[in-house]
Amino acid sequence: MKTIALLGATGSIGLQTLDVIRNHPEAFRLYSMAFGRNVEKAVPFIKEFNPSVVVVQDETAKEKLHQAMPHIDILVGSSGMVAISSASEVDVVVNAVLGSIGLEATLEAIRAKKQVAFANKETLVSAGHLVMAEAKKHGVNLLPVDSEHAAIFQCLNGEKLEDVNKLIITASGGSFRDYTRDELKQVTLEDALRHPNWSMGQKITIDSATMMNKGLEVIEAHWLFGIDYDDIEVVQHRESIIHSMVEYKDYSVLAQLGTPDMRVPIQYALTYPERLDLAVSKRLNLVEIGKLHFEEMSLDRFPCLRMAYEAGKAGGTATTVLNAANEEAVAQFLAGKIDFLTIEDYVARALDAHDYESFPSLETIMETDRLTRSQVRSYIQ
Amino acid sequence: MKTIALLGATGSIGLQTLDVIRNHPEAFRLYSMAFGRNVEKAVPFIKEFNPSVVVVQDETAKEKLHQAMPHIDILVGSSGMVAISSASEVDVVVNAVLGSIGLEATLEAIRAKKQVAFANKETLVSAGHLVMAEAKKHGVNLLPVDSEHAAIFQCLNGEKLEDVNKLIITASGGSFRDYTRDELKQVTLEDALRHPNWSMGQKITIDSATMMNKGLEVIEAHWLFGIDYDDIEVVQHRESIIHSMVEYKDYSVLAQLGTPDMRVPIQYALTYPERLDLAVSKRLNLVEIGKLHFEEMSLDRFPCLRMAYEAGKAGGTATTVLNAANEEAVAQFLAGKIDFLTIEDYVARALDAHDYESFPSLETIMETDRLTRSQVRSYIQ
Repeated sequence: MKTIALLGATGSIGLQTLDVIRNHPEAFRLYSMAFGRNVEKAVPFIKEFNPSVVVVQDETAKEKLHQAMPHIDILVGSSGMVAISSASEVDVVVNAVLGSIGLEATLEAIRAKKQVAFANKETLVSAGHLVMAEAKKHGVNLLPVDSEHAAIFQCLNGEKLEDVNKLIITASGGSFRDYTRDELKQVTLEDALRHPNWSMGQKITIDSATMMNKGLEVIEAHWLFGIDYDDIEVVQHRESIIHSMVEYKDYSVLAQLGTPDMRVPIQYALTYPERLDLAVSKRLNLVEIGKLHFEEMSLDRFPCLRMAYEAGKAGGTATTVLNAANEEAVAQFLAGKIDFLTIEDYVARALDAHDYESFPSLETIMETDRLTRSQVRSYIQ
Repeated sequence: MKTIALLGATGSIGLQTLDVIRNHPEAFRLYSMAFGRNVEKAVPFIKEFNPSVVVVQDETAKEKLHQAMPHIDILVGSSGMVAISSASEVDVVVNAVLGSIGLEATLEAIRAKKQVAFANKETLVSAGHLVMAEAKKHGVNLLPVDSEHAAIFQCLNGEKLEDVNKLIITASGGSFRDYTRDELKQVTLEDALRHPNWSMGQKITIDSATMMNKGLEVIEAHWLFGIDYDDIEVVQHRESIIHSMVEYKDYSVLAQLGTPDMRVPIQYALTYPERLDLAVSKRLNLVEIGKLHFEEMSLDRFPCLRMAYEAGKAGGTATTVLNAANEEAVAQFLAGKIDFLTIEDYVARALDAHDYESFPSLETIMETDRLTRSQVRSYIQ
């Protein structure tokens, strides 16, 4: 029996994590969950899973939850997330919060030597060198929940990292994979939110449409697996059946495949190094699918991916800026304040304006993150 | 440095094994090689690799080789193969002989606890229960050289056999994958020898066209990995890029891919658990390939595959008969004595005529093998 602290419980990954726990009551118990402000959404799950501690984002949410459920133990904010991530009762911390606010909790979970199931890629993008240094120091394996990284992780099972030639990350191409640059000028928020293969949260769906999501994944893969950017390739694969691949030095390529279902990588991150059945998922049937397609990924059509590679290679605070500018720009797009292509413009402007620092401290990163967000907000006339 | 005994040196796998050894003189040394009667073909390789011992099939070949190279040490026949397979100087035995004559040498190599690189599937088909019992008893891993089994072996790296749901073996479909049953009646030996993807020996190319090769592989996979026949699926995949797959109980599927090149699995069987570069091979480029196709494999169009499943499930001497009848029928087809579809008829007749024995001894297997061959020869009017 593994006890779990779930950060980001009401998001897409959070809800699917709860489903995995629900399907294996003999294997998992939810010790604690953290969510933002959506008390109405959370209450039925708190009743169902009966966690010992709940963390909410602010005092207003705490008061609301307290009125609905007066007998539960409620903590607030970052300090609350840190507390449940390092609690002695917890075996596995699932970090599924959105954006770089998951950073401190991740670091504390690592220091407490928890098994960390990691769906919060922004943390690694923003501060990969700090997170990985802590993970190495404490001998903690970060278990990726992103389908691409979970695929690579499985392809590396029983293999040696020094035998790896390159990683091949697949990309569905997002909502606009068949659009020209001209057509991208016209797209609406509604268009952007229609992802062809995966049902995901809004932010990641927009990031998939701009291809920034793939860029963030490239940076995440660099940190998780210690592979040079020149040895990380992105290939468009519209069916999202091959989730990613590893080429070894003898040109043998290992791939992980499956029906697109986030519960597979989530459950694997919880059960690793074991596997459990996942009867609720759909088995892969390649004959039914018939064909798998592979196309070149264009860095001209998707400059966010190009900027991610460039920021990754520049290192230091460059990826912090990339991520913060993107989070802010996507928030503005979701709020209907800017056009789709303005997202990439804002990210490019923020990167251009920034003086990179190579080995930033946690304080510098958090300060860079804050400054970048306020700068991007100032771009709106 | 690993020293190697190579059985079947002048065959297709043998020559590619020599190429692997040639590319890594720092890693491998050829201690001994065995071949049949083709002395002219073998002499240049004996000069190049300078093995300490050479084994030939009979006294005539020995005399011929002695005249060409008076100073080398020559052994003859089965006893010669057994001697080099169990020699103390040898680390790895590559068994690439054709047909069930490789059986005794395999058993002796296992008893001598050699690393056995295994390209001689007929041995496992004919006497799987004996070979695997010896392997288990002596703690020897059989390292498959067949691309499909090497793929499965790699997909199982770091995983547990009890977590496997099923094996998915891919089949190119062979020379006649797009032929109807009616069209199959007309095909010639020349047609059958044109395999679309792999350059291989004649016998295996014919077996690929009848789909018996895939049947033998199903039986080989059953023995190598201990998986039930009902959990071994064959899928037609015309590009031969995915070499095979493993589905785990969480519906995660691992696959091994690559350009069709037997040197990749051969080298892996020699280097395991390490990998070495294989610069002479062509890197996989999925964008260049564009599409991978998957189709259902029809047991009606390819009755040899159906008979292989049935013989496998019947067990005991059934697969011995299947293999011996097929070897003999294919030899007759290659000699121009029978039509393509008569191969499957002869196999079916031999299987029908045979009284199965469930747990045959080595003697019973060898006797069944001999009887079946003479019976099939008698079918020709």
